[in-house]
Amino acid sequence: MASMSSVLLTDLYQLTMLQGYFDEGMEETAVFEFFIRKRPPERNFFMAAGLASLLGYLERLQFTPPELEWLAGTGRFTDDFIAALSRLRFSGDVDAMPEGTVFFPNEPIVRVTAPLPQAQLIETRLINLLHFQTLIASKAARSVLAAPGKLLIDFGLRRAHGAEAGLTAARACYLAGFAGSSNVLAESVDGVPSFGTMAHSFVQAHEEEAEAFLRFARAQPNNVVFLIDTYDTEGAAAKVVSIAPQLKQEGILIRGVRLDSGDLADHAKKVRRILDQGGLAEVKIWASGNLDEQVVRDLLAAGAPIDGFGIGSRLDTSADVPYLDCAYKLQEYAGRARRKRSEGKATWPGRKQVHRRTGPDGRMAEDLLTLESDPQEGEALIRPVMRAGRRLAPSPSLAESRRRAAAELDRLPESLRRLGEAAPYPVRISASLQALAEEVDRRSR
Amino acid sequence: MASMSSVLLTDLYQLTMLQGYFDEGMEETAVFEFFIRKRPPERNFFMAAGLASLLGYLERLQFTPPELEWLAGTGRFTDDFIAALSRLRFSGDVDAMPEGTVFFPNEPIVRVTAPLPQAQLIETRLINLLHFQTLIASKAARSVLAAPGKLLIDFGLRRAHGAEAGLTAARACYLAGFAGSSNVLAESVDGVPSFGTMAHSFVQAHEEEAEAFLRFARAQPNNVVFLIDTYDTEGAAAKVVSIAPQLKQEGILIRGVRLDSGDLADHAKKVRRILDQGGLAEVKIWASGNLDEQVVRDLLAAGAPIDGFGIGSRLDTSADVPYLDCAYKLQEYAGRARRKRSEGKATWPGRKQVHRRTGPDGRMAEDLLTLESDPQEGEALIRPVMRAGRRLAPSPSLAESRRRAAAELDRLPESLRRLGEAAPYPVRISASLQALAEEVDRRSR
Repeated sequence: MASMSSVLLTDLYQLTMLQGYFDEGMEETAVFEFFIRKRPPERNFFMAAGLASLLGYLERLQFTPPELEWLAGTGRFTDDFIAALSRLRFSGDVDAMPEGTVFFPNEPIVRVTAPLPQAQLIETRLINLLHFQTLIASKAARSVLAAPGKLLIDFGLRRAHGAEAGLTAARACYLAGFAGSSNVLAESVDGVPSFGTMAHSFVQAHEEEAEAFLRFARAQPNNVVFLIDTYDTEGAAAKVVSIAPQLKQEGILIRGVRLDSGDLADHAKKVRRILDQGGLAEVKIWASGNLDEQVVRDLLAAGAPIDGFGIGSRLDTSADVPYLDCAYKLQEYAGRARRKRSEGKATWPGRKQVHRRTGPDGRMAEDLLTLESDPQEGEALIRPVMRAGRRLAPSPSLAESRRRAAAELDRLPESLRRLGEAAPYPVRISASLQALAEEVDRRSR
Repeated sequence: MASMSSVLLTDLYQLTMLQGYFDEGMEETAVFEFFIRKRPPERNFFMAAGLASLLGYLERLQFTPPELEWLAGTGRFTDDFIAALSRLRFSGDVDAMPEGTVFFPNEPIVRVTAPLPQAQLIETRLINLLHFQTLIASKAARSVLAAPGKLLIDFGLRRAHGAEAGLTAARACYLAGFAGSSNVLAESVDGVPSFGTMAHSFVQAHEEEAEAFLRFARAQPNNVVFLIDTYDTEGAAAKVVSIAPQLKQEGILIRGVRLDSGDLADHAKKVRRILDQGGLAEVKIWASGNLDEQVVRDLLAAGAPIDGFGIGSRLDTSADVPYLDCAYKLQEYAGRARRKRSEGKATWPGRKQVHRRTGPDGRMAEDLLTLESDPQEGEALIRPVMRAGRRLAPSPSLAESRRRAAAELDRLPESLRRLGEAAPYPVRISASLQALAEEVDRRSR
């Protein structure tokens, strides 16, 4: 099993550029910023995530002897350069928006200030970590807004894109306000509460469905949620009613049933009626199967009596927006602001800050994208988190970041809380930043 | 950093079901199969991938003492069950289509035959590994078909969904016929050739673009590909022409230029003319930036003189089809065939085999989904690969699997080679299988 924390998890061009910088002795301070260029119509806002992973990566960054030997063996690099790589650590500064912060296009969420080779080398993994976790937190937040007061569970591990995606998606969903995940490793590693019911195979492995329910209940007496769609949903609900007295006598309470196929609203209404008439009004109904925030909203709008939603593939793959147009761009080198002008991809130069103004209703009203050196107006969202390769303080706990995320969602303007495309949130560009961009353009040849 | 090979990377319900099976002593042989239920209109076929990762996972499957201790501490499981987990290894059989095989909906590509708890426990990670790698190989194969003879490179690591996705996507693209990947770890771990050029930041970090080119060439004299769109694409191409004689004098040949923005067909034509008129007819043109198989096809149809394509985000996220409707389903337990009948999700019961008939033109003509016990007609695609937890032979090398994939693409019927939706490839269901399904339905209550 390859180590996922290897520095070799990068694009080859990072290493070939580093050889160039090494040959030229170009080690002056570079400033890079990570931001999202454009908002897809399916997202009214983004939620920052991935910073904790990034800081851990930077703290541990180093080439191991076997990696250096392998690099030397490729014949692509000089011996002096390989020796320099063996000494390379991350000694730079990081300024960032805390995880759980709501942000908008062109607003940097992470700024790296470091000797050019270090700041360049980390580009690939930095984007890989920030992009995906932000993608999932931004998607999960929409379900949280669509289903206030409902129990939301991430069920996406199996169709997430690999192990790390499953693990970090569980964390990002919890950050955004989900109650937890089916992923056991996420509970063990990050403390994300894990939830689970049963699979169809458990029912199928038994000769009788009712027998499968009884046995499952006795094996997991504190976590009794039956999957009832293996053969016939309403028929299974009636079986649940019929075995409930026996289980009650054994001291076991049925907590819920799960629907996983068919017309979920229709099944939920029928099953609710069967359960209520059978004296099981306190048994909750969970739903799963091809859900996303739109389906959840429509089910609730149709009055489906569903208490909890297990949301899987479409969430963990962010199926409607599988990637974001994000970038990590050089904004300054050796004290001079830089700017890329490629068609359709121009960026704002210099070290930037985002100031957020809150309206009289306590909601976000407007952001101002400024130079870091400009006088502050309102709340400054980008804060120092790492200096000279060391964290300034322990990163906030996941619980703290989750509370921040909840507070951020509470502050969202009403129009941005809806799932449909809203008018863009206002992000003003300061006059100082516009002037700098013009100056950089005059200078570039 | 959490271990991505942890057995805890699973859904909680696997463990709660296992507690149930343990309590009941249900350890008889179960047969599960992994297959794709439906073909999305954007895919005319699938390409099997992920088997090598799966077999490695099964060979190493075991709970570590810290994992057992953590599980015990959750209070969800009995002590006897935790003790049983400490002894659990995978001792079952695996039959599978080799990696690189083309397949269609309802055709199992992996069958697991093992004591029920083992076969159940591995479900989540099995799907997680097979689904993603098959997803990417199936997508990458489309670019291979769309751009015959062109150099195709996977550039997707940064926006792949996490580290493992980036690594396994690079391998899956190479398997499907790509020349390589930008991902250095994929070369180091799997021998996937790595390719790279330079980033915009390298140009921006220098005061003059031509100076950046010269210095990059001297640092990487055997791999000189310039990124020419940082400021003005055609202007940069002219600079390449002007520095070529100097580099030639130093013994350095320019191998290529890369375009990354704007109208790629238009830029490629203009740049080709500038290079040709400057005596650089042998310099190749690479293109990148928001590419996928459709864009590549359109560029080539428009006569764009592009020799190589770097394909990134849309490939590594399979953006048009970010997940497949796949499943790992119980087909038999304790010698009796099983079947799920959930609405819209019914499955074919029993242990199955896929026979492929080849037409007189050497192309695939028809598949037959049968019971394993039926007499064979034509080529049987599912083969024994693991018995009693041990591989029967070393897995094929990636190079061998890649040759198989190429041969499979050569055998595709003409209609399936096109990017647009084709009439479905014929997959017949044998009479024996239909009879078994009816029998199982009569039996289920």
